[in-house]
Amino acid sequence: MVKPWQDTTLPAAVRAADLLARMTTEEKTAQITSVWIGADTEGADVAPGQHTYAARSAALDALLPYGVGHLTRPFGTVPVEPSEGAARLAELQRAIRTGNRFSLPAIAHEECLTGFTAWQATVFPTPLAWGATFDPALVTEMARAIGTSMRAVGIHQGLAPVLDVVRDARWGRTEEAIGEDPYLVGTIGTAYVRGLEAAGVVATLKHFAGYSASRAARNHAPAPLGPRELADVILPPFEMAVRDGGARSVMPAYNDIDGLPAHAHPGLLSRLLREEWGFTGTVVSDYYGVSLLEEAHRIADGERAAARLALAAGVDVELPAARCFDPADPLPADLLERSVLRVLTQKCELGLLDPQQEPAVGAGPVDLNPPHMRELARAVAEESVVLLANDYEGVPLRGDARIALLGPLAHEQAAMLGCYTFPRHVGVHHPGLPTGIEVPTLAEALRTELPGAVFVDDPAGADVCLAVVGDRSGLFGRGSSGEGCDAEDLALPYGQGDLLDAVLDSGTPTVIVVLSGRPYALGRWADRAAAVVQAFFPGQEGGGAVAGVLSGRVAPSGRLPVAVPRNPGGQPAPYLAPPLGRHGFPSTVDPTPLYPFGHGLSTTTFVWEAPHCEAPELPTDGETTVRLTVRNTGERPGTEVVQLYLHDPVGTVTRPEVRLVGYARVPLGPGASAEVRATFPADLAGYTGADGRRAVEPGALELRISASSEHVHHTVPLTLTGPVREVGHTRRMRCEMRVK
Amino acid sequence: MVKPWQDTTLPAAVRAADLLARMTTEEKTAQITSVWIGADTEGADVAPGQHTYAARSAALDALLPYGVGHLTRPFGTVPVEPSEGAARLAELQRAIRTGNRFSLPAIAHEECLTGFTAWQATVFPTPLAWGATFDPALVTEMARAIGTSMRAVGIHQGLAPVLDVVRDARWGRTEEAIGEDPYLVGTIGTAYVRGLEAAGVVATLKHFAGYSASRAARNHAPAPLGPRELADVILPPFEMAVRDGGARSVMPAYNDIDGLPAHAHPGLLSRLLREEWGFTGTVVSDYYGVSLLEEAHRIADGERAAARLALAAGVDVELPAARCFDPADPLPADLLERSVLRVLTQKCELGLLDPQQEPAVGAGPVDLNPPHMRELARAVAEESVVLLANDYEGVPLRGDARIALLGPLAHEQAAMLGCYTFPRHVGVHHPGLPTGIEVPTLAEALRTELPGAVFVDDPAGADVCLAVVGDRSGLFGRGSSGEGCDAEDLALPYGQGDLLDAVLDSGTPTVIVVLSGRPYALGRWADRAAAVVQAFFPGQEGGGAVAGVLSGRVAPSGRLPVAVPRNPGGQPAPYLAPPLGRHGFPSTVDPTPLYPFGHGLSTTTFVWEAPHCEAPELPTDGETTVRLTVRNTGERPGTEVVQLYLHDPVGTVTRPEVRLVGYARVPLGPGASAEVRATFPADLAGYTGADGRRAVEPGALELRISASSEHVHHTVPLTLTGPVREVGHTRRMRCEMRVK
Repeated sequence: MVKPWQDTTLPAAVRAADLLARMTTEEKTAQITSVWIGADTEGADVAPGQHTYAARSAALDALLPYGVGHLTRPFGTVPVEPSEGAARLAELQRAIRTGNRFSLPAIAHEECLTGFTAWQATVFPTPLAWGATFDPALVTEMARAIGTSMRAVGIHQGLAPVLDVVRDARWGRTEEAIGEDPYLVGTIGTAYVRGLEAAGVVATLKHFAGYSASRAARNHAPAPLGPRELADVILPPFEMAVRDGGARSVMPAYNDIDGLPAHAHPGLLSRLLREEWGFTGTVVSDYYGVSLLEEAHRIADGERAAARLALAAGVDVELPAARCFDPADPLPADLLERSVLRVLTQKCELGLLDPQQEPAVGAGPVDLNPPHMRELARAVAEESVVLLANDYEGVPLRGDARIALLGPLAHEQAAMLGCYTFPRHVGVHHPGLPTGIEVPTLAEALRTELPGAVFVDDPAGADVCLAVVGDRSGLFGRGSSGEGCDAEDLALPYGQGDLLDAVLDSGTPTVIVVLSGRPYALGRWADRAAAVVQAFFPGQEGGGAVAGVLSGRVAPSGRLPVAVPRNPGGQPAPYLAPPLGRHGFPSTVDPTPLYPFGHGLSTTTFVWEAPHCEAPELPTDGETTVRLTVRNTGERPGTEVVQLYLHDPVGTVTRPEVRLVGYARVPLGPGASAEVRATFPADLAGYTGADGRRAVEPGALELRISASSEHVHHTVPLTLTGPVREVGHTRRMRCEMRVK
Repeated sequence: MVKPWQDTTLPAAVRAADLLARMTTEEKTAQITSVWIGADTEGADVAPGQHTYAARSAALDALLPYGVGHLTRPFGTVPVEPSEGAARLAELQRAIRTGNRFSLPAIAHEECLTGFTAWQATVFPTPLAWGATFDPALVTEMARAIGTSMRAVGIHQGLAPVLDVVRDARWGRTEEAIGEDPYLVGTIGTAYVRGLEAAGVVATLKHFAGYSASRAARNHAPAPLGPRELADVILPPFEMAVRDGGARSVMPAYNDIDGLPAHAHPGLLSRLLREEWGFTGTVVSDYYGVSLLEEAHRIADGERAAARLALAAGVDVELPAARCFDPADPLPADLLERSVLRVLTQKCELGLLDPQQEPAVGAGPVDLNPPHMRELARAVAEESVVLLANDYEGVPLRGDARIALLGPLAHEQAAMLGCYTFPRHVGVHHPGLPTGIEVPTLAEALRTELPGAVFVDDPAGADVCLAVVGDRSGLFGRGSSGEGCDAEDLALPYGQGDLLDAVLDSGTPTVIVVLSGRPYALGRWADRAAAVVQAFFPGQEGGGAVAGVLSGRVAPSGRLPVAVPRNPGGQPAPYLAPPLGRHGFPSTVDPTPLYPFGHGLSTTTFVWEAPHCEAPELPTDGETTVRLTVRNTGERPGTEVVQLYLHDPVGTVTRPEVRLVGYARVPLGPGASAEVRATFPADLAGYTGADGRRAVEPGALELRISASSEHVHHTVPLTLTGPVREVGHTRRMRCEMRVK
């Protein structure tokens, strides 16, 4: 007889509850633990502290009779040939299934921030580059392709996206984030979530919450956040990705928020996430995050106490291996069952209660870097390149130019690949291992892109210098950008400022190309450069993308997801700032950036015609539509990015001067025009007031139709009427923008 | 018949209430406004924005028929000879008294941060130097002398002390603060308050609250504080100064706290300050602070709205001149009367309802810089000099040494005087005006202190180099330290690092002397220096004090009230940090300081004998006593500063690794010893937990008996027993330490 949990016609929650009722305590506990095969030997540099704990992980054999909750990083721990990896994973899952009474396999999770973190898999641009595209549709397409390739080899859950809003770009993980505006991060992040989930892979929102606001931007430092900054800046992307994106997993942050560690924060993990936002998925700990409650936060007196605190707050699964969630130690039954039910429900949704429904894995050859993935990587990369300055029309370069190509990063793959790519994350520990994918350096790509150009090493006699500066990605000090590679200031690393000084002093027209994982202060050189081009670790196709912009083949269309500062010090200086402290006086430190958030030039010209607003007066629960026409008046094709910012003249608490509430890419051939239609819901004017509640207030507002956060083309005054309205679950979180 | 308000036998509150009942609305409003005579012409650079608003101040003549609440800066606006100033002020008060029906004079307030901010008045060391003395008794004596001299010339209220806890030393006003530990700031600040109040002058606690925690340490920038950091780090000094010190006025901060400006913060200004702490004095706005609600915070739609918000939150008096609190505009009667009653009560307490009780002012010659004041200034300065390093026994210098004295600050008074001294605050706007007091530079003082030494300019041939580096104080960009002189990082200003490079490269033994308003990164040079000496703007007697330490006449006894960092970037890095993020890994940025909080060397040696704890187990409402003997085992006299730090192994929220809970200076001749007896109340272990309430919890604690926050001599384990105990009004806020 078929038992309820085996009955595929029943809802997942019902099946999971039935299964739960049949389990012993040991079997239940096994479902909220994880196993990291191979980590105790070869992967010791992939995560901090791993070496300390891995030896104490519950061994797989001991767990098998009870089952296994999660399998950690089957592809991203040591290099494994994709087909062989898929076969090994399938074999492992067979062992797990046959080991327990219910034939339950584990959820296999893997990193996928810039593509599947597996050997020979396509490396996409880093999230800061996604932000620069201002193109959610393309990001969804990318994520769906990534998810499909993961699911095909047996991965069920991806540990992405990172939804931390950049607050201080000295943070090494800035490259993993999408930008410094919550609306941009929320919309692009949600686009990624939709793509991954559409492929059947569980997206994991991280790091919930406040990691990017750590003191002095240091990795693993306290986040001195107040509740309003948390609510209005840090949390909105998570809310969007849960409500709008349907993300099925969330990972708490390592940091505390004003003293309370995220892994032990019931207000965040339960009240807000589940009760207010209606999240029904799983909360998985960050690697060793439960242990840190004892060892770094010191709010737990031992592993057991740490497990109880985390479980009570709302952490369901301990990653990357069982340490605090120990099957040998009984956890409070109600908390245990609450989490197990969530895990089992998710396994049911994933088809893991019915292994015959799982896609066949490990049967044939696997290609993780097929042409359509490379094309997507190229498309994202091309849209992400930002032309910051072109005062002397340094871009495009002449096809027959004598080019002095300067700077060691012109010849390095590490300037293209973020720290969560397989080559930089894992490959660096395996000297001699081939990258397994083609990653042309900028130098190589330029030779392809500009076959008629002559490349020389000396500025003297050259028509133009290309000075290539920026970052090498790495982890924990093995680079200048990436997890644990925080910066004391935003000066170009490796003394590359001296290179720029020397090149610019040569007098030869110089194009500065920055390939980096964070913005760097360029105020010392920008005025003298023929052009400045910025790309954020643009991935394996990034060389061609940047070279394409330099050659003129690609019309530059990226926009800054983070401001580029003038000076290295004086951080943090986020663009989301109220009038107080937004400029210099009465301080000697002026936080005004060199290039503001949203900035990016084209190589053609646009006219933004006067907008028409249908209803400049709207109720606090209404919406209005603004239309305007944008015209390419130049001789080259180009893409304008129409940005809508909201300015609130008077609030009950301080408000940022402007914040992004809508955007649209408008690709236009020479002479062409398009109408952009923005439907702005009053909900987007809501914020958390003096009483701690989020509400939309009646009164005057301004929509600023802008080419960047500072470059306003048109201002549309609005008046909100009616009562103050609290905005809760029914909130419309997007300004729909259509281009026709 | 004598009316109740004229009856000196009645309590002040009763008299004030009677007076209030007799006043018209215009008369009431006049009591909460202020007038700044002379500011609209000559004082335009003394405060930010003053020039904008001063022209709009209600003119004195228009106010006279109704009365005047406050008179702003009668001595600190333009230079005035003290006797003449006193006479002018007396004359002005006569005009004010005779102008209104009740013969009420104004409260005259003046700055007094480093002494009375008047021409020819003694300039004391800056508050950071008070912090370095760890000597509350001396600070009380200094403040009493300052207050007495102010009261004698007709000043009733002093706009000091600054109780902001340093959170990021890039802040220009760091020099005005006492240190980075709330207990040190609270005890030293309270000592100052007691002295000033004992002289009959109203002390004004500022800036309430969070100014020092502004983003990136910029002047007038938002303070991204959470409620726990606010409660446990920022507020305790204010609580101590109100409850323990009896301060009668409080000034809100310019900044917002997580979006809510302090001048419009009822939670701070009313609920906490008055209802919880029992404060009954006046809240006076910071200069233009009410206007900023409209113009910089944008939470008020016009001046009237700003006035209402401020008054409703708990601001009683608008300074420095009437702008938003306009007698022509009726304010809500209940709010108006609440504030007027407070002002009148204070006037009554000050004797202003009975002018015959006021000290006679303006009658004879005035000396604001008498010998006993100079001696006090010298005593504070001498105790404040910190010997940071003496690896090669550079200090004391030989009396007959050939000394290469290097660095322009060796010859500048601006390296001795903080930004709130009259010469730097006002005098700089009057070129040619003599300082009016003697301020020997370090070069001059060294010639006095070391008459047998030969001073040369070239390291070659010298026995020792004295490299003098640091700050010039100033306001709003007119210096490298002071209000509005924020720094992008903690690199020595004016390129003085290059001077140190050059001097140390000469090979001649070098003593580095830092005269500054904030700590600067010294990691690049400290290891190679023969000694490093730090003084924080030590005042008019500072030259002699520093030279006295260098010559050996003065035994160095100062201790760092703020840590000295190794590197310029990576700020902020406060010493009050939990284990997470306290050191480098997993970040590349290591916040470990070069010299920690509390550090300071002697030129003799001490032995700290094993301590004895009377009751290592104590109830959560109990106390215990620890005794230890300290012995001077060297051949020179010296002063040890015994510091007690509390370490809490496990909390309900993250706890700083250590925090100061007690200290005592122990002056000892060669061979002498003393017993230090510390009575530690369990109340000091309280902190704000996950539920937002401050409580003392049972469990293990450690008292660390230390020579600095890092240099632990002895550890005393304690166990707290009994129930969790909320700590409210009866809290004992000090660890009493006695030396015998």
